[in-house]
Amino acid sequence: MRKKVVVLGSTGSIGVNTLTVLDNLQDDFEVIGIAGNSNVPKLLAQMKLFNPEFVGISNPASAEEFKSQIDTDNVKIFAGEDALIMVVQATQADVYVCATSGSAGLQANMLAVEKGTRIALANKETLVCAGALFLSKAKEFGTEVVPVDSEHSAIFQALQTGKHNEIKKIILTASGGPFRNHTPEMLESVTVEDALGHPTWDMGQKITIDSSTMFNKALEIIEAKWLFGVGADKLGVVVHPQSLIHSMVEWSDGNLIAQLSKPDMKVPIQYALTYPARVENSTVANFSISDFTKMTFEEADFDRFPALKLGFEVVETDDTTGAIFNAANEVAVAAFLNNEIKYTEIYQVVKKTMSAITPEPADSLSKILNASANAQEYAMNLCKSM
Amino acid sequence: MRKKVVVLGSTGSIGVNTLTVLDNLQDDFEVIGIAGNSNVPKLLAQMKLFNPEFVGISNPASAEEFKSQIDTDNVKIFAGEDALIMVVQATQADVYVCATSGSAGLQANMLAVEKGTRIALANKETLVCAGALFLSKAKEFGTEVVPVDSEHSAIFQALQTGKHNEIKKIILTASGGPFRNHTPEMLESVTVEDALGHPTWDMGQKITIDSSTMFNKALEIIEAKWLFGVGADKLGVVVHPQSLIHSMVEWSDGNLIAQLSKPDMKVPIQYALTYPARVENSTVANFSISDFTKMTFEEADFDRFPALKLGFEVVETDDTTGAIFNAANEVAVAAFLNNEIKYTEIYQVVKKTMSAITPEPADSLSKILNASANAQEYAMNLCKSM
Repeated sequence: MRKKVVVLGSTGSIGVNTLTVLDNLQDDFEVIGIAGNSNVPKLLAQMKLFNPEFVGISNPASAEEFKSQIDTDNVKIFAGEDALIMVVQATQADVYVCATSGSAGLQANMLAVEKGTRIALANKETLVCAGALFLSKAKEFGTEVVPVDSEHSAIFQALQTGKHNEIKKIILTASGGPFRNHTPEMLESVTVEDALGHPTWDMGQKITIDSSTMFNKALEIIEAKWLFGVGADKLGVVVHPQSLIHSMVEWSDGNLIAQLSKPDMKVPIQYALTYPARVENSTVANFSISDFTKMTFEEADFDRFPALKLGFEVVETDDTTGAIFNAANEVAVAAFLNNEIKYTEIYQVVKKTMSAITPEPADSLSKILNASANAQEYAMNLCKSM
Repeated sequence: MRKKVVVLGSTGSIGVNTLTVLDNLQDDFEVIGIAGNSNVPKLLAQMKLFNPEFVGISNPASAEEFKSQIDTDNVKIFAGEDALIMVVQATQADVYVCATSGSAGLQANMLAVEKGTRIALANKETLVCAGALFLSKAKEFGTEVVPVDSEHSAIFQALQTGKHNEIKKIILTASGGPFRNHTPEMLESVTVEDALGHPTWDMGQKITIDSSTMFNKALEIIEAKWLFGVGADKLGVVVHPQSLIHSMVEWSDGNLIAQLSKPDMKVPIQYALTYPARVENSTVANFSISDFTKMTFEEADFDRFPALKLGFEVVETDDTTGAIFNAANEVAVAAFLNNEIKYTEIYQVVKKTMSAITPEPADSLSKILNASANAQEYAMNLCKSM
């Protein structure tokens, strides 16, 4: 029998790649649900290709437009703010691909983790904001959490070569973004256009900015802490501009295991779907020696990329600090993309917000959402005053 | 209870490194037997440090010298041609480290594989000459074969991240040796001194020459075929001068898993002893980012290093071709080290010997040894006529 898949965030960058992979795996997987925000043309195309029984559309106007263009007899459409949550509630899939960006899908993901099947987790914020809660539910319900992020997929694979207590260090690689050789002065004048030109990965806007500021890497460090159960002393970052080694695990005995692949998200996406099996991936071009003639590595500069320092500070906490950190960054990136603040002010907004909002125990979703909302409000006011 | 270890070839490069590692693991391992050829000072030092019950010394005069310098009451000393075999016969160890170089230890290794425990295999020739026979005995007696070669240790580790039928390619890395940028004309005039200067590894003489001619890599390809049960279509070689990635496995799904470490044999030696556990290795300096700031990779040039072509030819066979190939190379390297033939004639000797000696089924040790002896004789005559 084919495995049933629900893709939350199907119209985003990861969602689209996921459906490309699933299109190629139709013998083994059946897409029973998709959910997006407002991209009606993409949702219609996905509807046509996979014919899912459930569709969630967060934007009410988009939902109406969608409904007007299809035969609604064979599909259940959920519209509005809770559309993603309703898709999760209505389904019992074997795999939930959590591919919304930002904290939008948090509540839906918290429900999906109660299904007792598999979550292919592409949404960083779930772990950053609600790591302890999410993973305790995963444990309680027997849900398997398999990472989709290329770095965490690399680590997840490398960790199969040893035991947890043998880990010396988990080393995340970072492309370093387009500004890794910029002076502090040059960073001051970075424009939105500059920041959206990522050297190796083709990604969404938010993650592209996060990648350039290294806030993305900070989020990933926090994510790694939760996923792999290690502390700050066992986490490291190394800059690797070619983005070929996606991360590595250093073992206590001097062996280091690394994963390489083309910088194509379809590789880790497929692995998260088929794990522990590996199947031919015809959606990705062959990887050959000519793809990795040269790889370089350098220490990550915490002074030039202070987001990393904040990330390691968050790793030391298990309260709502992660939610505050993440919400402030979301607001700051949006403000930067909207030309409201300068590039270097993204970090300032996050740092100041973290200082201003007192964290609380992150033992319920409402506390986490509350911390997020407070941080958002504070950060928005900060942006306006800049 | 401590695991009992016998080290065959204890005075050679791998043997000495093995004992350094074991000295550091004395809480978990007990050296009950050592065996070497003629290096009495080293054997005496090892005797003093580990106090093994069994010592084998192949050279009779060296054995006499050894006996005259120790209290022989608490040690059983075996001398002469069959010393290694007798050490294996007299012991029941948990691990036999087979670290003789060349085909010298073949018979002893063939006995050790009947013990039903573990072989830490550093001797390439066992598999190259007698792969089918050795592994069928390992299966019959339930003996675990764990590779010590850095490349095979890397592959052995990387293979833990997937299943056999998911292997796309096993890619062995090669330093390329000191002559990887030499023209054919420059290779013609390579001296013994030139060839013994290996850029990254500190190894024995035979393996250093083999490394420069790529006969070593050819032997390793053949070894990999047997150890990992793959054909020539799933084996590849890539030149990686920095010797940091020791080999990699490319999976069918586009993921590639690589192992890195300092170019220090004590890393794979310890892993072969402690596998599946990993323990702190205080005999090896820490591996840090500054060790791998740059890694380069290039296609292996089969025209400049025709030994690789011969290696892949041997991979296609399961008869005595491997034994002939190996014996001819042993003779040719010895003749080169003795200034009897030119550097480029090493390949000529092997190729001509392979053409001249008709292979037979490799279904008994006597047939294999016979093929070796015939190849040796033929190659020696060839060397004299050059």
